[in-house]
Amino acid sequence: MHATVHRLAMRDPGDVSALAALLARREIDPQQIVAILGKTEGNGLVNDYTRGYFTQSLKLLLGEHAERPLYIFSGGTEGVLSPHYVVFSAKPQAIAPHPSGKALAVGCAVTRELQPDEIGTRAQADMVSQAVKQAMRSALMEAGDVRFVQVKGPCVTPASMAYSRAAGAFGVGVALGEIDAGFSENDFLKDATRYSSRASVSSGVEVRVNEVMVLGNSAAWSGPLSIASRPMQDALDLDAVLGVLADLGIERTPAGLARVRAAMVKGEPDTTGRIRGHRHTMLIDGDMNAQRHIRGALGGLVAGVLGDGRIFVSGGAEHQGPAGGGLVAAIAASDSTWRA
Amino acid sequence: MHATVHRLAMRDPGDVSALAALLARREIDPQQIVAILGKTEGNGLVNDYTRGYFTQSLKLLLGEHAERPLYIFSGGTEGVLSPHYVVFSAKPQAIAPHPSGKALAVGCAVTRELQPDEIGTRAQADMVSQAVKQAMRSALMEAGDVRFVQVKGPCVTPASMAYSRAAGAFGVGVALGEIDAGFSENDFLKDATRYSSRASVSSGVEVRVNEVMVLGNSAAWSGPLSIASRPMQDALDLDAVLGVLADLGIERTPAGLARVRAAMVKGEPDTTGRIRGHRHTMLIDGDMNAQRHIRGALGGLVAGVLGDGRIFVSGGAEHQGPAGGGLVAAIAASDSTWRA
Amino acid sequence: MHATVHRLAMRDPGDVSALAALLARREIDPQQIVAILGKTEGNGLVNDYTRGYFTQSLKLLLGEHAERPLYIFSGGTEGVLSPHYVVFSAKPQAIAPHPSGKALAVGCAVTRELQPDEIGTRAQADMVSQAVKQAMRSALMEAGDVRFVQVKGPCVTPASMAYSRAAGAFGVGVALGEIDAGFSENDFLKDATRYSSRASVSSGVEVRVNEVMVLGNSAAWSGPLSIASRPMQDALDLDAVLGVLADLGIERTPAGLARVRAAMVKGEPDTTGRIRGHRHTMLIDGDMNAQRHIRGALGGLVAGVLGDGRIFVSGGAEHQGPAGGGLVAAIAASDSTWRA
Amino acid sequence: MHATVHRLAMRDPGDVSALAALLARREIDPQQIVAILGKTEGNGLVNDYTRGYFTQSLKLLLGEHAERPLYIFSGGTEGVLSPHYVVFSAKPQAIAPHPSGKALAVGCAVTRELQPDEIGTRAQADMVSQAVKQAMRSALMEAGDVRFVQVKGPCVTPASMAYSRAAGAFGVGVALGEIDAGFSENDFLKDATRYSSRASVSSGVEVRVNEVMVLGNSAAWSGPLSIASRPMQDALDLDAVLGVLADLGIERTPAGLARVRAAMVKGEPDTTGRIRGHRHTMLIDGDMNAQRHIRGALGGLVAGVLGDGRIFVSGGAEHQGPAGGGLVAAIAASDSTWRA
Repeated sequence: MHATVHRLAMRDPGDVSALAALLARREIDPQQIVAILGKTEGNGLVNDYTRGYFTQSLKLLLGEHAERPLYIFSGGTEGVLSPHYVVFSAKPQAIAPHPSGKALAVGCAVTRELQPDEIGTRAQADMVSQAVKQAMRSALMEAGDVRFVQVKGPCVTPASMAYSRAAGAFGVGVALGEIDAGFSENDFLKDATRYSSRASVSSGVEVRVNEVMVLGNSAAWSGPLSIASRPMQDALDLDAVLGVLADLGIERTPAGLARVRAAMVKGEPDTTGRIRGHRHTMLIDGDMNAQRHIRGALGGLVAGVLGDGRIFVSGGAEHQGPAGGGLVAAIAASDSTWRA
Repeated sequence: MHATVHRLAMRDPGDVSALAALLARREIDPQQIVAILGKTEGNGLVNDYTRGYFTQSLKLLLGEHAERPLYIFSGGTEGVLSPHYVVFSAKPQAIAPHPSGKALAVGCAVTRELQPDEIGTRAQADMVSQAVKQAMRSALMEAGDVRFVQVKGPCVTPASMAYSRAAGAFGVGVALGEIDAGFSENDFLKDATRYSSRASVSSGVEVRVNEVMVLGNSAAWSGPLSIASRPMQDALDLDAVLGVLADLGIERTPAGLARVRAAMVKGEPDTTGRIRGHRHTMLIDGDMNAQRHIRGALGGLVAGVLGDGRIFVSGGAEHQGPAGGGLVAAIAASDSTWRA
Repeated sequence: MHATVHRLAMRDPGDVSALAALLARREIDPQQIVAILGKTEGNGLVNDYTRGYFTQSLKLLLGEHAERPLYIFSGGTEGVLSPHYVVFSAKPQAIAPHPSGKALAVGCAVTRELQPDEIGTRAQADMVSQAVKQAMRSALMEAGDVRFVQVKGPCVTPASMAYSRAAGAFGVGVALGEIDAGFSENDFLKDATRYSSRASVSSGVEVRVNEVMVLGNSAAWSGPLSIASRPMQDALDLDAVLGVLADLGIERTPAGLARVRAAMVKGEPDTTGRIRGHRHTMLIDGDMNAQRHIRGALGGLVAGVLGDGRIFVSGGAEHQGPAGGGLVAAIAASDSTWRA
Repeated sequence: MHATVHRLAMRDPGDVSALAALLARREIDPQQIVAILGKTEGNGLVNDYTRGYFTQSLKLLLGEHAERPLYIFSGGTEGVLSPHYVVFSAKPQAIAPHPSGKALAVGCAVTRELQPDEIGTRAQADMVSQAVKQAMRSALMEAGDVRFVQVKGPCVTPASMAYSRAAGAFGVGVALGEIDAGFSENDFLKDATRYSSRASVSSGVEVRVNEVMVLGNSAAWSGPLSIASRPMQDALDLDAVLGVLADLGIERTPAGLARVRAAMVKGEPDTTGRIRGHRHTMLIDGDMNAQRHIRGALGGLVAGVLGDGRIFVSGGAEHQGPAGGGLVAAIAASDSTWRA
């Protein structure tokens, strides 16, 4: 078993030609695609239709296989961020083992549909927790192997979005042993000291289930890819980004950075209105939404470190990393010349 | 002779209470203020009135001294950037010399009023060049001492803004020996290989003269402050930012970073539509101006390195550093405990 | 006693030269100015500093008289709206009576400062109600004479803004007999069937008192000016606008419309997401705030009818006219040639 | 021969269920659809992908018939505007004649592909002119019968957009006898006195041909529908809107307005910066594009008159109606109870 990761460019949210070319050249087997994660160039807010447009375009391309992969898109390519998508495939063959002994593993799971009154409750958190464990089992990972869990959960109203994210984050945290299972749903959006450092959760009206993708490193998987992640203490946490590179054994040289194959960041505008004591204006800007502000800043920092704007940056980090912070993750090859 | 630098917070563009407190405590002598440079929280575009509001507020505070300092404000505190202003004073007393032998020096000069048809021409560049030389002489600096030149020039139409900036940058470049004096004004906005790595130029309808502030290090000045700058090759140029810290002998520790007293960045959205080969969307976003995009990204990067969002980030970098790039500068104390 | 109304242009929020010219020519006596109401060209949201800038500019001009007038500014000149301000003066002399027997009357009053926990409560409503009655008495108006009441109340948090407006609207409604005095503060933002058709209320952190300006027609006042107003059933209510002209005896001809000296509109994006059964997108647009949407639409309609973009359009119409609607008012001279 | 017009709602740019339902009930024959014109809820600017998304959604629904209709979408439903689409069908059967003797006629034509250097030239204008004549002939209309011509032309750069629109407008104007055929392409964007009062032209990178839809009234067509249009002198021209209703014999009552089946408006922010002498801020607003401003204002006016936000409002009116103005058109049934 091994995973492949293709990072592809799009000219616009209707353009899936890069994936089409790989399919035509049989470099990717559509049956083996397990998830597609990407940044589209909308505003990343409720009226961002670039996610739906790109998903429709992919489904047109992938045809009958369309329902199988998880589609995980975040709108908003502020600043130096570049629209792109990452195709995760799981291949049954074992190849050369990872030098560290553990290689990138990918597991996905989907919960049952939620009733509207279950959204943002302990019941949702428990379901997500079970799905994370199921995805871990299916991909032969232990909790300690997991580095990044992407969850997409349902919401019905704007107000329920944050609660759905909170429930998802608690579900991940419990599954990974970061949050005590005896938590109360009253802690949601209240107790910021409870969080998962490896959860990245979004919510949207377009799903009724919880979709879960777990990324980690497993001895049962082979190949040159691996993943690392770190919590970010705040939006200025350069050390966390450098720490991820260190964890991957990457030096910040062209050859070193060429090993990076995907990067993911989750963060939020500090709700105190200050970062390290200095006032920011993200929360009071009537012209530019706070999510656009924070994505642009985090993108500028992480892209600067990696020398590449193709980063999955997403806002809304309740219980995902420390308050005012978030997390950063990267997938790298052990050898900069390895392809896919 | 020595310079002081006070970096102050504002609650909003009408709030000058931090400076008022320093004046009341006689920590700043209004007669010695030579320039005030800051970021206000508008959109940084043509209908950004926060610059005018803050200038009016300062003039109300400084009263009869109002006409003396240069007021240099850039709107737009996207992402992690923090509204703030930096008060530069020049004091006649010599104090302990800088350990390196050269201390921060500040020189200002103003050209005569331009005729509208002189804007964006060689005549403007020549005038700016003379003013830079005059400011250098008045502050006892050689061209090699200069690290950062801020120019504010006049414009009459939106189209003339970029030409006025180009003329200003050429003027600085010639004065500093970075651009050959035999240039043609036909190179403006055309030949991106000609640039000054130490010029930061803006233009606006509110001035009819060119205002020039030259910052450098001079053996004739004393005190613990000094300045360093580097060109940025592109908006991802983390090495340039780290290089400035290295030039100042600063390690990226809390104590080291506490030595930084001001930081300035100039950059632009790459006009090719790509950064290191990857498409960006700054130039085609109809909702969020390209200048807001680039300021947010550069701010995220530089603030991440310095651990502080109080950075003067300004867009519109024609002939100011390499195409698609710009420059970064910082002022630091030789001792983190020194005050002002 | 008679009122004068000067509608003046501004080039930007720092420009008070039109009023300065009238003061210099002694056409306006600063001692007689009772209120200045205007539209400035910011975004009309929490980070709109054009209101503060223009207020500061006026206070600089009016000097020691600065504290006396009410300053009532609304940001946002979307679409065809034109930045302008209307100077209301109250003059002690009687002049020729209004043909109808009742002429424009202006009364102002200010409540005591509110405690933070009084904001948005019945206590605030009662205070506003008393202030409206006091302003009516001081200007010799009965409740039936009143056509338009502008209230500016305090708020401490974004959440308290709407409650403060609701309390203000109830206060006006009770004073004018439109809302039963036995109301409960639990009706605030809940019972949309209770409203005043003559209240225009805003709230802001910049005031701690409630400021009230009452406009109506009174037999005790003289001169050619009078005022009319109508509730607007929704944002498409052209008949309400035409009705105001009819009430003023104005035909929609150049000569007729030249009699109009000021116009005020209050409205809101329909919170059901629909207008007359058709979906609107104002509430889900992440790029452009709903208040900017609704001001632009109402401005387009009313300016089209009046042939003039100088209209005071303000959003946030809780309990001010029917749900999804608001109110429209105009001041006109009985003779198109009358000046001031 | 007769035309039908179905005005349909969409929940979002991926929703074509309203048309699907009509196709399922065989109320519309997909073979007879000649054009679909609509407003989608993007920003209406270069990065508005809601047009492409909705077009893709329609093509998925209409399948093999997808290439046949003209797809004409304008983004931007500012203010009271409602996302919707209008399906034009041409049916071969004659039905009861229009009371006036002339009924709504629809003709479409497409030019050959343009070379990039033909865009914005006299050659493009001539091609459009021929296409308009061809569409008129095919729909048995004389130039005097035509009321509204929609043109979509190609562009290659942002700068070429306005020239392409100008060429299209001149083409229409010549075909309809409004502009002398001896014009020079040097008049494009220069001589605003030359215009067509019946042209509505857009340009985009997504087409290489010119697509033309001509709407008018013809004695050769039958049925209860007809169309009227008027030039708008400026963005406040309420009389033009009322004039269109008068031309259609419609009183502004619920029953009268129920006869209206579609409405189209073209306009632009006055490039002088003033409307009827008063300054507007549309052209200097860095947060909100001028096209969003003008669409919101025109939408507010026309929707107010018609009592309905389902209006096709489009900006960019070079040589389409008077400078600073544009045109307004409406299609109505002779009987408010007629369906489709």
